[in-house]
Order: sequence, then structure tokens, then C-alpha cells
Amino acid sequence: MPENRQVVIASLPTGALAESDFELQTVGVPEPGPGQVLCRTLAVSVSAGSRAGLQGSASYAGAPKTGIVMSSLAVARVERSNDPALSPGDVVTCGAGWQDWSVHPAQQCFRVEGSADPARYLGVLGTNGLTAYFGLLEVGEPKPGDTVVVSAAAGSVGHLVGQIARIQGCRVVGVAGSDEKCQRLVAELGFDAAVSHRSPDFRQEFKAACGDGIDVYFDNTGGDVLGAALFRMRNGGRIACCGVVSQYDTSKPAPGPRGVPGLLVNKRLRMQGFLVFDWAQRYGEARAQLESWLDSGELVAWQDEFEGLESAPRALVDLLAGGNVGTRIVRVSPG
Amino acid sequence: MPENRQVVIASLPTGALAESDFELQTVGVPEPGPGQVLCRTLAVSVSAGSRAGLQGSASYAGAPKTGIVMSSLAVARVERSNDPALSPGDVVTCGAGWQDWSVHPAQQCFRVEGSADPARYLGVLGTNGLTAYFGLLEVGEPKPGDTVVVSAAAGSVGHLVGQIARIQGCRVVGVAGSDEKCQRLVAELGFDAAVSHRSPDFRQEFKAACGDGIDVYFDNTGGDVLGAALFRMRNGGRIACCGVVSQYDTSKPAPGPRGVPGLLVNKRLRMQGFLVFDWAQRYGEARAQLESWLDSGELVAWQDEFEGLESAPRALVDLLAGGNVGTRIVRVSPG
Repeated sequence: MPENRQVVIASLPTGALAESDFELQTVGVPEPGPGQVLCRTLAVSVSAGSRAGLQGSASYAGAPKTGIVMSSLAVARVERSNDPALSPGDVVTCGAGWQDWSVHPAQQCFRVEGSADPARYLGVLGTNGLTAYFGLLEVGEPKPGDTVVVSAAAGSVGHLVGQIARIQGCRVVGVAGSDEKCQRLVAELGFDAAVSHRSPDFRQEFKAACGDGIDVYFDNTGGDVLGAALFRMRNGGRIACCGVVSQYDTSKPAPGPRGVPGLLVNKRLRMQGFLVFDWAQRYGEARAQLESWLDSGELVAWQDEFEGLESAPRALVDLLAGGNVGTRIVRVSPG
Repeated sequence: MPENRQVVIASLPTGALAESDFELQTVGVPEPGPGQVLCRTLAVSVSAGSRAGLQGSASYAGAPKTGIVMSSLAVARVERSNDPALSPGDVVTCGAGWQDWSVHPAQQCFRVEGSADPARYLGVLGTNGLTAYFGLLEVGEPKPGDTVVVSAAAGSVGHLVGQIARIQGCRVVGVAGSDEKCQRLVAELGFDAAVSHRSPDFRQEFKAACGDGIDVYFDNTGGDVLGAALFRMRNGGRIACCGVVSQYDTSKPAPGPRGVPGLLVNKRLRMQGFLVFDWAQRYGEARAQLESWLDSGELVAWQDEFEGLESAPRALVDLLAGGNVGTRIVRVSPG
């Protein structure tokens, strides 16, 4: 019987996350019980949201603990099944976490169908893509001609948001963390403009890029970029609050932006948080649309990859420092 | 010919507003031009929003200046008319400001009909009542059984919001600035609970009053009360941002509340600013409903009054210190 390598949380970070907050351990492969399946992990996702899950404060994922396997979504292959709904060889998405083997109730595994690379279900066809789709269209409600701004624009959700907005006929401005990312957003993904929040002249450059103001701001970061965007919103604008990556890698989140709630009143702004799970009944419709855009070439999905389970902590620490472009995954097994 | 007394802005306040920031001057009575009417002020409104208009920062009312008449809504009687739409003796609402006489284009005066006391058009049948009505029902979207919280609950808008929520079948919690106000909200207006934000145990008392959490928070204050409410919101809750009275009487507004935008995401909250003018087409419908509730006794309108134009600065300074209960007006002329 093979062994099961696991990346576990060794210590809860109080400041910036470090690779040393994790450790690799090896245990036996678990046995599936009645109605359960045994899964072999093919790839796991690495996302800023995982860091939020390590904060002691309220998160929709619950309170973090040491000594447990780092949680994450994964694509996996069913190796043994005690449920007629799934068969060995089926490829599924499941909450495997950062480990080689895991058992799950069969109904918590979702069969992946028809994609050349199942890892796409960790990116454009998974939570990231669905978040971009529903968050922009249902919460942001962009109209053709609107100016749409997205922060963490080169990130897993952001790069898709900008493109979906462009497909809707909007003018799209991205905010990202380096000049190189900004250049790629414009050259490769058709953003109308992109601004680095690390530029010493960020506020001025941002103002210039936003022209007459922002109709829809898709906020992945909170913090200073949210603060800047609030001052550039047009009357009646919508802010879709998706994530707060600027405040994840710390145990001391900053105060909220000035202008809340004053600017919300004066400009009649709507600021709305959302979680993609609320649209679970409509995932099929969204995936069909996303695949159609991918097939036509209108939508490009960026994916960046690490090899080997042991690289997952490094992949996350680097992502929090802004190292990723698009969806970051770790390939665990060749499948 | 009579004289025209005016309260003008002598200096723009940098800290808390003082009576000395105003001065009384006497000028001639203006002449109405073509299409204009000359109005004799009967009563003017005194509201926290007037203080916001004296801040240099962006307000929907535009930038403030010294040497001009303090702006405010008023009820007034038409004395001379150069427009067939209005006749001498008509009682109207208009933006007279704090002065005895003013001229206006006739189409900027709105005839007041059928109310025993026209000053009600500065309160429950005016901007305050309409703000409570549309802000609560259209932005807050309360459902029967919801817990609705309103801040500045004894204020001109707040005391109406709480009662309209009660009429909708909601459980209503008010936050006000004194124990006496809280007692009156419960005893006289049927609030289920009320908490003083000046209590040293405010956070605990507020938590207890909110029970299982808040579905709708109608925010008149921003600041600490908004901060406390954010942490007590239920998933999917709505925050109607109406005003920021905690930040008006200063030139150094505090940062926004912690938890923006993090809590908005985790709890899927919607936070939406509004200005009542956006529902101008529906004022008639709202006034008819408000009058019906007043007639049946379900809705009680609190009004507090000062006498004489010269008392207006004192009335505003006192209101900003929390001295008012309900709508504050200054009677200028017996009519």
C-alpha cells in the first residue's frame, strides 16, 4: 500500500505567512467507509482565500486549527468506491486538501466531464471562474459602455473578470502589482488600461485610467485600492466585494476605507459582498458560457503551475507576495 | 416695506459648529422677476445634513461659502407672484434658507395641500418622512419578522424608520443618544428595544438587543454604531446608508469601520447609499401612505420647535449635540 503525504498546519501565522508554518508528514492511506470513495489527488489549488482561512477571525470557512491538513480544492481520481454514483477512474473535484489520498462521501465529489485538462476545474471552470462570472454579472451588473475596474487583475479571478467585462462591451481597467502584469493584461487579454498599485504615482495614474469615473468596481483586495476606487466611483456605481487579499496576510487588518459610508450616500453607491456558492444552482449555465468563450478564443485562462505536493507551501507564500499570474495550482500526481 | 432678516454663514467651522459661525444681517426684501414668486418664510427646517453642507469635502449639495444665507428647506406663503401657477396666499415648500423673504422660480416651489400644519412638510410629509419611507422599504427591503436596527433612532428620519419597520411586522431596535430617548422610543413609538450609544456597555447591550442578529440596518450615523452593527449583521443582511451624522460636526472624519469590506464578503452583505430625490416620481404615493398611517394612529410624528429666525443657529448647534427629538423646525412667522 502506498503512503499518504500530507501538508499540515504547524503554526497559525501571526504576521506574514511563512513556509515554516507548514510541515510535511506521512501517514497511512485512509479506508473509505460505506457511501464513501477513496481519491488520489491529481492537483490542488493555491489561492489567497486559503490564507484568510488561517486567520483567527470570522471566516465563512470556520476557525483554523494546527495539526490538520491544509484545506483546498483539488481534482482527484476515484481509486475505490463504496457508492454506486462513482466508479474507479472517475475524475472529480473535491475538498481533498494538500495530501495524496483522501476519503469523501460520494455526494461531496463532483464528476468532471469533457475537459482536456481537469485542472481547469480549479480555475476558469471552477470556483474562480464562477466567482468572476456571477460576481461581475449578478452583483456588478455592468452595462455596455460602462467603465469596469478590477483589482488583483492578474489574479485567478481578476483576469477573468476583466475579460468578461470586455466581452460585455465595457471599458476595462485593471489594477495589478507590477508593470509586467499590467503590460500583459493590456497586450494579451485586451484590457483598455492597467495600473500598478505599487507605482509611486498610483493615485494619479489610476485617476487618469478611470477617465470619467467607475461604474463597476470588482474588489478583490480591499485596502488602499478600494479607498482609491471609492473616490472615483460615478453616481449610482456598484462595488462587488469579492475578497480582501490586501488584509489576508496579517493578523492586524487595517481600518476600513475613508468615505464609508459618506461617499456611499453622496454617490448612491451599492457595495455588496458575495460568495459564489449562492449561485450553485446555476453553475451549469455559467460553465457552458465560459467554455463557449474559451472555445471562441474570446476568453483566455491563465494558469500557473508548481510541481509536487511539497511545493505547495512555497506556492502559497509566493502567491501572497504577488508571484502568481492567473490561477495557481500544484500538480500532485500525473494522474 | 418690511425688512429681510437673514442668517448668513460668517465662517466655515473647522471643528464643532458654533453659534458664532453665523451672523444675522438685515437687507431689503427682494423683487420677484418674471416667472418668479416672492415668499414669506413660515418655518425652516434644522437638520444634521445642514452641517454636512458646511464641510469642504464633496457633498451632493456642492461646496460651501461664507457670506451666503444658510440654506435650508422651508414652508412659506406666496406674497407676490409673477407666474400663473401660484397665487398670493398659496403655501409652498421651497429652498428659502434661513431668512424672512426669498424669491424663487415658481416651478421650484411646491404647493402644500390639505395639512393642518404645513410644517409637517418639513418633517413626516417632507424629505425626512420620504427618506425614511423609501430608504427603508426600497433599500433596506425588510420582510415581516426581520430584525431592523436604526441609528439616530429618535431623530427626524430615525423615529419614522422604526415605526414603518414595526408596521411591516419587523422587530425594531433603535440606537439613540440618551436613556430618555430610548425609553420614549419603546414607550411611545412601540420600538421593541432601544440602546444608548453613550452607555459604557453599549456593545454588550447592543448585542443583547439584536438577538439572533440584524437583517436590516438603517444607518444615519456611520462611525462606531455602524462598526458595531456590521459585526451583528446576519448573512444576506442589508445596510441602508442614509447619513453620517457622527462625522458631520468635524473637519476630520474618522476612517471607515473595520470589517469593510471583509465582513461584507463573509456575510454577503449589501451596503447601499441613497438620496431620496431619486424617488421624486413616487412622492405622492409615499405621502398618501404616510398620511394614512398618521390618520390611523399607527405612525406618530415627533416635531420639536424653536421660535424666531434668530434662534436657528442655536437650534442647529444643539441638534448636533443630540438635543432634538424628532424633526426640528424653527417657526419664523406665524403665517
